[in-house]
Amino acid sequence: MLKPLGDRVVIELVESEEKTSSGIVLPDSAKEKPQEGKVIAVGTGRVLENGERVELEVSVDDRIIFSKYAGTEVKYQGNEYLILRESDILAILGE
Amino acid sequence: MLKPLGDRVVIELVESEEKTSSGIVLPDSAKEKPQEGKVIAVGTGRVLENGERVELEVSVDDRIIFSKYAGTEVKYQGNEYLILRESDILAILGE
Amino acid sequence: MLKPLGDRVVIELVESEEKTSSGIVLPDSAKEKPQEGKVIAVGTGRVLENGERVELEVSVDDRIIFSKYAGTEVKYQGNEYLILRESDILAILGE
Amino acid sequence: MLKPLGDRVVIELVESEEKTSSGIVLPDSAKEKPQEGKVIAVGTGRVLENGERVELEVSVDDRIIFSKYAGTEVKYQGNEYLILRESDILAILGE
Amino acid sequence: MLKPLGDRVVIELVESEEKTSSGIVLPDSAKEKPQEGKVIAVGTGRVLENGERVELEVSVDDRIIFSKYAGTEVKYQGNEYLILRESDILAILGE
Amino acid sequence: MLKPLGDRVVIELVESEEKTSSGIVLPDSAKEKPQEGKVIAVGTGRVLENGERVELEVSVDDRIIFSKYAGTEVKYQGNEYLILRESDILAILGE
Amino acid sequence: MLKPLGDRVVIELVESEEKTSSGIVLPDSAKEKPQEGKVIAVGTGRVLENGERVELEVSVDDRIIFSKYAGTEVKYQGNEYLILRESDILAILGE
Repeated sequence: MLKPLGDRVVIELVESEEKTSSGIVLPDSAKEKPQEGKVIAVGTGRVLENGERVELEVSVDDRIIFSKYAGTEVKYQGNEYLILRESDILAILGE
Repeated sequence: MLKPLGDRVVIELVESEEKTSSGIVLPDSAKEKPQEGKVIAVGTGRVLENGERVELEVSVDDRIIFSKYAGTEVKYQGNEYLILRESDILAILGE
Repeated sequence: MLKPLGDRVVIELVESEEKTSSGIVLPDSAKEKPQEGKVIAVGTGRVLENGERVELEVSVDDRIIFSKYAGTEVKYQGNEYLILRESDILAILGE
Repeated sequence: MLKPLGDRVVIELVESEEKTSSGIVLPDSAKEKPQEGKVIAVGTGRVLENGERVELEVSVDDRIIFSKYAGTEVKYQGNEYLILRESDILAILGE
Repeated sequence: MLKPLGDRVVIELVESEEKTSSGIVLPDSAKEKPQEGKVIAVGTGRVLENGERVELEVSVDDRIIFSKYAGTEVKYQGNEYLILRESDILAILGE
Repeated sequence: MLKPLGDRVVIELVESEEKTSSGIVLPDSAKEKPQEGKVIAVGTGRVLENGERVELEVSVDDRIIFSKYAGTEVKYQGNEYLILRESDILAILGE
Repeated sequence: MLKPLGDRVVIELVESEEKTSSGIVLPDSAKEKPQEGKVIAVGTGRVLENGERVELEVSVDDRIIFSKYAGTEVKYQGNEYLILRESDILAILGE
């Protein structure tokens, strides 16, 4: 198990070449392109200057899109993950 | 459905070549030019250091203008969107 | 109608070539030169970390001077405007 | 009348070539050199994160010295002024 | 004994060449790669603007992964350590 | 009289060539070298975000050492001074 | 006596060539190397935005390690010292 710290999130990459069940496809343009992932684990949240922790907006199993060059790759127990800060996540994909 | 995080907003681009119903036309000058869009979804707002969340000023269906190079393009279920931070939005177009 | 967000202000440019009624003339020197404008619409103000909004100091119809390279040009319903942050405004011109 | 915004101050330049009544003379060295001015108008002060405004330390008619390259030049009703932030003012000259 | 200050942590490096018991292996890609370590000592935490100290999330003996280029190497009483800030730690490895 | 603003301090330079009574001598090395000065006037202190002013730690007549390239030179009523921020002062020299 | 201001600390350098009693030896690698010192005097601490001062974690006579290029050298009454900010100190060496 990977337990991310603070406002970090562990995700499993959903490759953009395969058309995913949620139907996200990346357009081919000059702008920064996001990638899709699935949340595997979430941190306890960042600490505010008044001492409160802000719970993350994303939850385990959420499908998300995030900034393409964000995060750090990790291979753990045979699987590949990406560890991001929540601020690198753009949106949750709903149904 | 795309559910943006924090102070982010999902918009649908309104092409500046077509003269829109609200009548915004971009001048041809050297200054930074804004673009027009329509708000599709809004985030829950950013969290202040006292723990409060600040609700966004824009609402779904608002026509807005925003900084031209802001945001990330996303194609989702066949449609193209742009995900912006509210701070990249300049003004709401009223009637 | 253009409704600016946060601490933004919509102004109408007052060309510096014409000597305006308020009598402002820009000196020809190497320093940064301000420009004159008239306030058309004001935002609701920026939000402090304690949740309060700070009302803007400028009001509709105020004659102001602002930093020359500040703001974004917008043409809306046939008129040209500039959208600035209040922090780009240097002073209000009184009588 | 010029009414500066926030923590800004309108000053009238006191040329450093003429030896002023307060006797300030600028040394000829490699360090940054300040300039002398007289305060013509002061803003309402900057707003703290708790909502309070901090009244300026300088008052109208104060003789001050300020950082040489600070501020924006304005010619208004035939006179030349400089608009500075209070943080660009180094000291008040007393008798 | 090394007693780290503030939000710092002393760790013992777990070399990535050897396959560790927790099974972390670094993938060979262009992205930034993390490293694995074991926590030896933790600081008292950073101080918030309200005067509170935020206790660290990691504890002595935690297996962690951290940003590859973070930290300062120290050899102390014959052993090699790395001193990091907690913000350079990405996740705790659980079982 | 020079009345410095905020957290500023007016000092009189004590030349490092002359061995001063307090015995400070600057070593000849590659590191940044401090200089010695005597405090002539102190500001009212900086304002915290809660509205309080923080009184300066240095007082008039204190012998101090400060960062070599800090401050602005001023010649006033025939004397040369340096205006610094308190944060450029490293230490007070005691007996 | 040198009385450091704010969160500053006066230390006496412990040369890394000599193997010190606490046994710290610097490894020869490409990473940033710390140095060892002994605390001679500590400041009153930095001031938080709520007006509190945060007492330093280090005390006089503590053996510490700190970032190699941090601080300002001072020769005072025949001795050489280094003035650091507490944030440049990595850890206290215990027994």
